[in-house]
Amino acid sequence: MTNCANTPEPPYYAVIFTSTMTGDNLVGYSATADNMVTLARPQDGFLAVDAAREDIGITVSYWRNLGAIKAWKQQMEHMQAQEQGRAIWYAGYSVRIAKVEREYSWHI
Amino acid sequence: MTNCANTPEPPYYAVIFTSTMTGDNLVGYSATADNMVTLARPQDGFLAVDAAREDIGITVSYWRNLGAIKAWKQQMEHMQAQEQGRAIWYAGYSVRIAKVEREYSWHI
Repeated sequence: MTNCANTPEPPYYAVIFTSTMTGDNLVGYSATADNMVTLARPQDGFLAVDAAREDIGITVSYWRNLGAIKAWKQQMEHMQAQEQGRAIWYAGYSVRIAKVEREYSWHI
Repeated sequence: MTNCANTPEPPYYAVIFTSTMTGDNLVGYSATADNMVTLARPQDGFLAVDAAREDIGITVSYWRNLGAIKAWKQQMEHMQAQEQGRAIWYAGYSVRIAKVEREYSWHI
Protein backbone atom coordinates (compact mmCIF):
# COMPACT_ATOMS: atom_id res chain seq x y z
CA MET A 1 0.00 0.00 0.00
CA THR A 2 1.20 3.48 -0.82
CA ASN A 3 1.63 5.70 2.19
CA CYS A 4 1.77 9.43 2.55
CA ALA A 5 4.93 11.15 3.71
CA ASN A 6 6.07 10.86 7.31
CA THR A 7 7.62 14.02 8.68
CA PRO A 8 9.06 15.00 12.07
CA GLU A 9 7.42 17.38 14.53
CA PRO A 10 6.96 20.88 13.07
CA PRO A 11 8.37 23.36 12.41
CA TYR A 12 9.86 22.39 9.06
CA TYR A 13 9.33 23.64 5.49
CA ALA A 14 7.15 22.53 2.58
CA VAL A 15 7.70 23.32 -1.10
CA ILE A 16 4.31 23.13 -2.81
CA PHE A 17 4.88 22.69 -6.55
CA THR A 18 1.76 22.78 -8.75
CA SER A 19 1.94 22.42 -12.52
CA THR A 20 0.03 21.98 -15.75
CA MET A 21 1.57 20.14 -18.71
CA THR A 22 1.87 20.80 -22.43
CA GLY A 23 1.29 17.06 -23.08
CA ASP A 24 4.62 16.66 -24.95
CA ASN A 25 6.98 13.74 -24.26
CA LEU A 26 5.35 12.59 -21.05
CA VAL A 27 7.46 9.40 -20.95
CA GLY A 28 10.59 11.53 -20.69
CA TYR A 29 8.87 13.62 -18.05
CA SER A 30 8.07 10.64 -15.82
CA ALA A 31 11.65 9.36 -16.00
CA THR A 32 13.03 12.80 -15.12
CA ALA A 33 10.51 13.31 -12.30
CA ASP A 34 11.42 9.91 -10.81
CA ASN A 35 15.10 10.76 -11.15
CA MET A 36 14.60 14.08 -9.34
CA VAL A 37 13.02 12.26 -6.37
CA THR A 38 15.96 9.84 -6.33
CA LEU A 39 18.37 12.79 -6.34
CA ALA A 40 16.44 14.78 -3.72
CA ARG A 41 16.23 12.02 -1.08
CA PRO A 42 19.92 12.05 -0.08
CA GLN A 43 20.11 15.87 -0.07
CA ASP A 44 20.98 17.42 3.26
CA GLY A 45 17.78 18.48 5.02
CA PHE A 46 15.41 16.48 2.82
CA LEU A 47 12.56 14.99 4.87
CA ALA A 48 9.93 13.47 2.55
CA VAL A 49 7.85 14.00 -0.59
CA ASP A 50 4.21 13.49 -1.65
CA ALA A 51 3.10 13.66 -5.29
CA ALA A 52 -0.07 13.14 -7.35
CA ARG A 53 -1.07 14.09 -10.88
CA GLU A 54 -4.58 14.32 -12.31
CA ASP A 55 -5.74 17.45 -14.22
CA ILE A 56 -2.90 19.27 -12.51
CA GLY A 57 0.20 17.93 -10.80
CA ILE A 58 0.97 18.58 -7.15
CA THR A 59 4.31 17.69 -5.58
CA VAL A 60 4.91 18.67 -1.97
CA SER A 61 8.45 18.14 -0.72
CA TYR A 62 9.35 18.62 2.94
CA TRP A 63 12.64 20.09 4.13
CA ARG A 64 14.37 20.83 7.38
CA ASN A 65 14.99 24.51 6.63
CA LEU A 66 15.22 27.19 3.92
CA GLY A 67 18.91 26.54 3.33
CA ALA A 68 18.18 22.94 2.31
CA ILE A 69 15.52 24.16 -0.15
CA LYS A 70 17.90 26.69 -1.68
CA ALA A 71 20.66 24.09 -2.07
CA TRP A 72 18.27 21.68 -3.80
CA LYS A 73 16.98 24.42 -6.12
CA GLN A 74 20.56 25.04 -7.28
CA GLN A 75 21.68 21.40 -7.53
CA MET A 76 23.10 20.98 -11.06
CA GLU A 77 20.97 18.14 -12.42
CA HIS A 78 17.89 19.64 -10.82
CA MET A 79 18.60 22.96 -12.57
CA GLN A 80 18.89 21.12 -15.89
CA ALA A 81 15.57 19.36 -15.23
CA GLN A 82 13.91 22.70 -14.41
CA GLU A 83 15.19 24.10 -17.72
CA GLN A 84 13.89 21.06 -19.61
CA GLY A 85 10.59 21.38 -17.78
CA ARG A 86 10.11 24.93 -19.02
CA ALA A 87 11.27 24.06 -22.56
CA ILE A 88 9.16 20.92 -23.05
CA TRP A 89 6.77 19.70 -20.36
CA TYR A 90 5.23 22.51 -18.38
CA ALA A 91 2.51 24.85 -19.60
CA GLY A 92 2.82 26.60 -16.25
CA TYR A 93 3.79 26.08 -12.65
CA SER A 94 3.80 27.71 -9.23
CA VAL A 95 6.21 27.18 -6.37
CA ARG A 96 5.14 28.08 -2.83
CA ILE A 97 7.54 27.93 0.08
CA ALA A 98 5.71 27.48 3.36
CA LYS A 99 6.64 26.93 6.98
CA VAL A 100 4.69 24.00 8.44
CA GLU A 101 3.49 25.08 11.88
CA ARG A 102 1.14 22.23 12.82
CA GLU A 103 0.52 18.68 11.67
CA TYR A 104 -1.88 15.96 12.68
CA SER A 105 -2.56 12.56 11.25
CA TRP A 106 -5.22 9.89 11.47
CA HIS A 107 -5.29 6.31 10.24
CA ILE A 108 -7.45 3.22 10.58
CA MET B 1 -7.66 24.10 -19.78
CA THR B 2 -7.36 23.44 -16.09
CA ASN B 3 -5.34 26.00 -14.22
CA CYS B 4 -3.61 25.89 -10.89
CA ALA B 5 -4.76 28.09 -8.05
CA ASN B 6 -4.15 31.82 -8.15
CA THR B 7 -3.32 33.32 -4.79
CA PRO B 8 -2.47 36.84 -3.59
CA GLU B 9 0.96 37.99 -2.45
CA PRO B 10 2.22 36.03 0.58
CA PRO B 11 1.92 35.73 3.48
CA TYR B 12 -1.18 33.54 3.62
CA TYR B 13 -1.83 30.00 4.83
CA ALA B 14 -1.95 26.59 3.14
CA VAL B 15 -3.68 23.48 4.45
CA ILE B 16 -1.91 20.48 2.91
CA PHE B 17 -4.24 17.47 3.13
CA THR B 18 -2.79 14.12 2.01
CA SER B 19 -4.79 10.91 2.13
CA THR B 20 -4.99 7.26 1.18
CA MET B 21 -8.32 5.56 0.54
CA THR B 22 -9.96 2.31 1.61
CA GLY B 23 -11.47 1.97 -1.90
CA ASP B 24 -15.06 1.82 -0.59
CA ASN B 25 -17.87 3.87 -2.18
CA LEU B 26 -15.66 6.15 -4.23
CA VAL B 27 -18.67 7.58 -6.11
CA GLY B 28 -20.03 8.90 -2.83
CA TYR B 29 -16.57 10.23 -2.00
CA SER B 30 -16.26 12.24 -5.23
CA ALA B 31 -19.67 13.82 -4.72
CA THR B 32 -18.83 14.77 -1.14
CA ALA B 33 -15.37 16.09 -2.09
CA ASP B 34 -16.91 18.27 -4.84
CA ASN B 35 -19.54 19.48 -2.40
CA MET B 36 -16.85 20.43 0.14
CA VAL B 37 -15.09 22.61 -2.47
CA THR B 38 -18.42 24.27 -3.28
CA LEU B 39 -18.98 24.93 0.43
CA ALA B 40 -15.43 26.14 1.07
CA ARG B 41 -15.29 28.74 -1.72
CA PRO B 42 -17.69 31.27 -0.14
CA GLN B 43 -16.14 30.87 3.34
CA ASP B 44 -14.62 34.01 4.77
CA GLY B 45 -10.87 34.01 4.12
CA PHE B 46 -10.91 31.26 1.48
CA LEU B 47 -8.43 32.01 -1.34
CA ALA B 48 -8.12 28.98 -3.65
CA VAL B 49 -7.71 25.21 -3.80
CA ASP B 50 -5.59 22.72 -5.79
CA ALA B 51 -6.30 18.97 -5.81
CA ALA B 52 -5.01 15.81 -7.50
CA ARG B 53 -5.42 12.10 -6.76
CA GLU B 54 -3.24 9.27 -8.01
CA ASP B 55 -1.82 6.65 -5.58
CA ILE B 56 -2.45 9.18 -2.84
CA GLY B 57 -4.67 12.25 -2.78
CA ILE B 58 -3.31 15.74 -2.21
CA THR B 59 -5.58 18.73 -1.64
CA VAL B 60 -3.97 22.06 -0.86
CA SER B 61 -6.38 24.82 0.15
CA TYR B 62 -5.20 28.40 0.64
CA TRP B 63 -6.59 30.72 3.30
CA ARG B 64 -6.11 34.30 4.41
CA ASN B 65 -5.31 33.41 8.04
CA LEU B 66 -5.51 30.75 10.77
CA GLY B 67 -8.94 31.97 11.92
CA ALA B 68 -10.42 31.19 8.50
CA ILE B 69 -8.93 27.67 8.62
CA LYS B 70 -10.35 27.05 12.08
CA ALA B 71 -13.82 28.28 11.07
CA TRP B 72 -13.83 25.98 8.01
CA LYS B 73 -12.67 23.01 10.08
CA GLN B 74 -15.68 23.49 12.36
CA GLN B 75 -18.27 24.24 9.65
CA MET B 76 -21.16 21.80 10.28
CA GLU B 77 -21.39 20.01 6.91
CA HIS B 78 -17.61 19.87 6.70
CA MET B 79 -17.48 18.21 10.13
CA GLN B 80 -20.03 15.62 8.96
CA ALA B 81 -17.94 14.95 5.84
CA GLN B 82 -14.79 14.52 7.98
CA GLU B 83 -16.66 11.98 10.13
CA GLN B 84 -17.86 10.10 7.01
CA GLY B 85 -14.34 10.22 5.64
CA ARG B 86 -12.95 8.45 8.69
CA ALA B 87 -15.84 5.94 8.77
CA ILE B 88 -15.82 4.98 5.07
CA TRP B 89 -13.31 6.45 2.67
CA TYR B 90 -9.97 7.16 4.27
CA ALA B 91 -7.37 4.58 5.24
CA GLY B 92 -5.32 7.45 6.60
CA TYR B 93 -4.67 11.15 6.23
CA SER B 94 -2.40 13.96 7.35
CA VAL B 95 -3.20 17.64 7.71
CA ARG B 96 -0.38 20.19 7.67
CA ILE B 97 -0.99 23.85 8.36
CA ALA B 98 1.71 26.01 6.81
CA LYS B 99 2.39 29.71 6.39
CA VAL B 100 3.26 30.52 2.77
CA GLU B 101 6.22 32.89 2.85
CA ARG B 102 7.21 33.05 -0.83
CA GLU B 103 5.59 32.21 -4.14
CA TYR B 104 6.71 32.39 -7.74
CA SER B 105 5.06 31.28 -10.93
CA TRP B 106 6.03 30.64 -14.52
CA HIS B 107 3.94 29.98 -17.61
CA ILE B 108 4.39 29.75 -21.34
